[in-house]
Amino acid sequence: MDNSKIPLVPVILSGGVGSRLWPVSRKQHPKPFIKLPDGDTLMAKTLKRSLSVSHSNELMIVTNRDLYFHTKDEIIKLQSQGGLSPSLNQHYILEPFGRNTAPAIVAAAYQLFQKHGPDVVMLVMPADHLISDEHAFSQAVNLAYEVAIEGQLVTFGIHPEYPETGYGYIHSNQGRALLSERSAGGAAFQVEKFVEKPNLETAKSYLESGDYYWNAGIFCFTAGALLSEVEAIAPSLLSQIKSTFDVSSITQNTTTAQVELSSQEFAKVEDVSIDYALLEKSNKVSVIPCDIGWSDIGSWSALSRLIPQDNDGNHLYGDVIALSTRNTSVYSPNHLTATLGVDDLIIVNSGDAVLVSHKSAQKDVKKVVLELEAQGRNLHLNYKTVHRPWGNSTVIQKGDGFKIKRIVVKPYSSLSLQAHNHRSEHWVVVSGEATVNNNGDVFCLHVSESTFIAVGHKHRLENTSNIDLIIIEVQIGYYLGEDDIVRFEDKYGRP
Amino acid sequence: MDNSKIPLVPVILSGGVGSRLWPVSRKQHPKPFIKLPDGDTLMAKTLKRSLSVSHSNELMIVTNRDLYFHTKDEIIKLQSQGGLSPSLNQHYILEPFGRNTAPAIVAAAYQLFQKHGPDVVMLVMPADHLISDEHAFSQAVNLAYEVAIEGQLVTFGIHPEYPETGYGYIHSNQGRALLSERSAGGAAFQVEKFVEKPNLETAKSYLESGDYYWNAGIFCFTAGALLSEVEAIAPSLLSQIKSTFDVSSITQNTTTAQVELSSQEFAKVEDVSIDYALLEKSNKVSVIPCDIGWSDIGSWSALSRLIPQDNDGNHLYGDVIALSTRNTSVYSPNHLTATLGVDDLIIVNSGDAVLVSHKSAQKDVKKVVLELEAQGRNLHLNYKTVHRPWGNSTVIQKGDGFKIKRIVVKPYSSLSLQAHNHRSEHWVVVSGEATVNNNGDVFCLHVSESTFIAVGHKHRLENTSNIDLIIIEVQIGYYLGEDDIVRFEDKYGRP
Repeated sequence: MDNSKIPLVPVILSGGVGSRLWPVSRKQHPKPFIKLPDGDTLMAKTLKRSLSVSHSNELMIVTNRDLYFHTKDEIIKLQSQGGLSPSLNQHYILEPFGRNTAPAIVAAAYQLFQKHGPDVVMLVMPADHLISDEHAFSQAVNLAYEVAIEGQLVTFGIHPEYPETGYGYIHSNQGRALLSERSAGGAAFQVEKFVEKPNLETAKSYLESGDYYWNAGIFCFTAGALLSEVEAIAPSLLSQIKSTFDVSSITQNTTTAQVELSSQEFAKVEDVSIDYALLEKSNKVSVIPCDIGWSDIGSWSALSRLIPQDNDGNHLYGDVIALSTRNTSVYSPNHLTATLGVDDLIIVNSGDAVLVSHKSAQKDVKKVVLELEAQGRNLHLNYKTVHRPWGNSTVIQKGDGFKIKRIVVKPYSSLSLQAHNHRSEHWVVVSGEATVNNNGDVFCLHVSESTFIAVGHKHRLENTSNIDLIIIEVQIGYYLGEDDIVRFEDKYGRP
Repeated sequence: MDNSKIPLVPVILSGGVGSRLWPVSRKQHPKPFIKLPDGDTLMAKTLKRSLSVSHSNELMIVTNRDLYFHTKDEIIKLQSQGGLSPSLNQHYILEPFGRNTAPAIVAAAYQLFQKHGPDVVMLVMPADHLISDEHAFSQAVNLAYEVAIEGQLVTFGIHPEYPETGYGYIHSNQGRALLSERSAGGAAFQVEKFVEKPNLETAKSYLESGDYYWNAGIFCFTAGALLSEVEAIAPSLLSQIKSTFDVSSITQNTTTAQVELSSQEFAKVEDVSIDYALLEKSNKVSVIPCDIGWSDIGSWSALSRLIPQDNDGNHLYGDVIALSTRNTSVYSPNHLTATLGVDDLIIVNSGDAVLVSHKSAQKDVKKVVLELEAQGRNLHLNYKTVHRPWGNSTVIQKGDGFKIKRIVVKPYSSLSLQAHNHRSEHWVVVSGEATVNNNGDVFCLHVSESTFIAVGHKHRLENTSNIDLIIIEVQIGYYLGEDDIVRFEDKYGRP
């Protein structure tokens, strides 16, 4: 960025599940948290990229409140690796449920407006897209910033590579360059219109015309410009968001502010995209055509293109033996998958579920998720590891009368003081040091030491050290549901 | 059987691994132990069938000594279910390694000759074949018995259904009926010759000729007839087996006799099939053509034909969601497998490994096993559950510094008195009652109680009750190899 005084704050929208990436994506482990072949998550890449192009020490994340700790864990991990500043200012807007992009963006703008005033520039981007040409992106953002401070709502238009029918398109008015060649290598044009998912023939004609772009869902505008357009075009949306903020709780500490949106009020907010609610109707919208190596990683094929291709056209990741196999993608990070004499398949082995799809049928992966929903199952909801404020826990095995978990407690973190009515628990320390409160006795457990928590006894597991504590918990009882918990004290304010 | 005085003893050969059924078949969990869609194993079916057609209270099993307890568990299970008599007399010939069928059969004949004299009739059959028409099989066995007591070596010839190139064929001399129509619905013919795996053209001509049969590897003869033909045709084989018996250990209790063949001597025995060593060269061989619904379950296609077919030609077993899927077989007993838009595949999900093969490539499943061997891995050797004399143990999870096992101890059984130099162990009782010796203290643990075994402490886990004991064991240590065990006392005589 230039040494401009007006701050540019990244706003990361972490919304959808990405059900086309089932079985790795789950409602509680959505697409931004999927580990890519290079070991990074899309969220980690988005965080690093957004702060690198904004030169800011501040960001905002709009996400589901159930994903707060998971998101926070990503940031802490990046901070510990040096990828993000330890003093990064984080704003979280926590939604009780998804309401599409318009409410998320308006809420973000409203909150940033409160803090910085109308001139703050927002760089809005989804958490789960990939941008491989960071230099080109940075240039496009520089240009967008200049156009945004002139009051425009800036969109990023991706040069289409093929006639995709699953994306929205932006039609630019090439005659009306708003900012051409003023910054190196870029131009901004007024937007003629937005088009939602066209049919194949139309998509082909867009590709030929040369002035249609894929709508990447990346936007840049000042909070003031956005809010005044919303006030003019969609005033009820703005008042719904204001009402929601009026009754929402805000928590603030040194580096982190959380707005937990009220379910009751947020439920009244219209479920609508920013394109439909505002951009299609505004005449202040411009587009910056760009070539930034963008992908929404919207399918297993897209994800597997990140894996180097072998001589038979296969993209193989993880523990794979592929014999007489061609043009096949296998994502099998933790368990062996062997293929034999197959072509054109997508195979994903997440450990607890396996998907075998023909490449041409990938768009229907969602149908498997719908079927799981219809069957009342949870393989589309939860992953074996759940993230908690104090760390995470993984169910290793459930059986008749027992359940075994691996529990990781972060440094200086603590589970709630709790009791169970139907199960006893055995804790064995595998790594680190546990501070245990067992029915009022407080003591320390070291590696290979254990304790027994009887049914009904109040207990607390705490890590007072500066390294992770790992324990194996063996639960015994006839009823082992997660809802058998009575919390007496919780430093994270959970009921 | 007729009320004949001469006993008919089934001899079950439980040899090969069945690598074409990987990943479910493993060296330590070979084909006879694979659970079929109806819940039975091939071994259980073979045991029940052999005793039902022989009307005997005695059987002999020739198998690898590592599989003794696994085999014994199958018998105990069938006995407890009422499928086998509790007083069944069992002879085991335990091989240190496989040496093909000739040594196994000659050893069996030698042992039965010792016990019953030359006239005892042996019904030799592989443990891992399926025979669906038990009535027809019983009729064929009745006929075989009659022919056998006349001194013939009887083979069972299966009417070929298609020109299979993977089987051996038996050419009968239809002009020389040895026993025709004497028993209901059958005839025995002299064998003209044996043919090993023909090429496709030859196999087709066999199919047309009408007097070629698949060699099912099922045989019937008296111990005396077999041994005298071996003495005449392959005398060195007989003397090798005799020498092996001379130095092998024999254990005998009320119902069970075990011959554990000496590795040193058995290593000197020729690795050769009974067909090649004897039957091809003898002129006392006859064949009973029969239609008994025989299958060697030699591939996943063969196994999946046991699963009912859906309207799209799929055979789906276990937890499967199949969308737009045709002519595909999925065997996924414990984990979800979802298929989408695929045809003509075989998919097997064993939990720790997944196979996706085109139907036409199934014969190459062995190549995956060879690749695992070449990579020095163990997914073709061990299964997560291992069978021990006292019960079984399943590794639930291995991690850095810990290993978790589920251990089942059978009634009135006991692990050895042992110690570990590098690991401590925590035992939590999930079901049943444990009698524990922990460093000299002997005490009882009930459900949800636990104990800690320190590094170096002598300990023993015992089940003195009449129901299974199930414990979860959490091992902690830097080295967690199975070889870190010092045994002080063992009621099963292990070193």
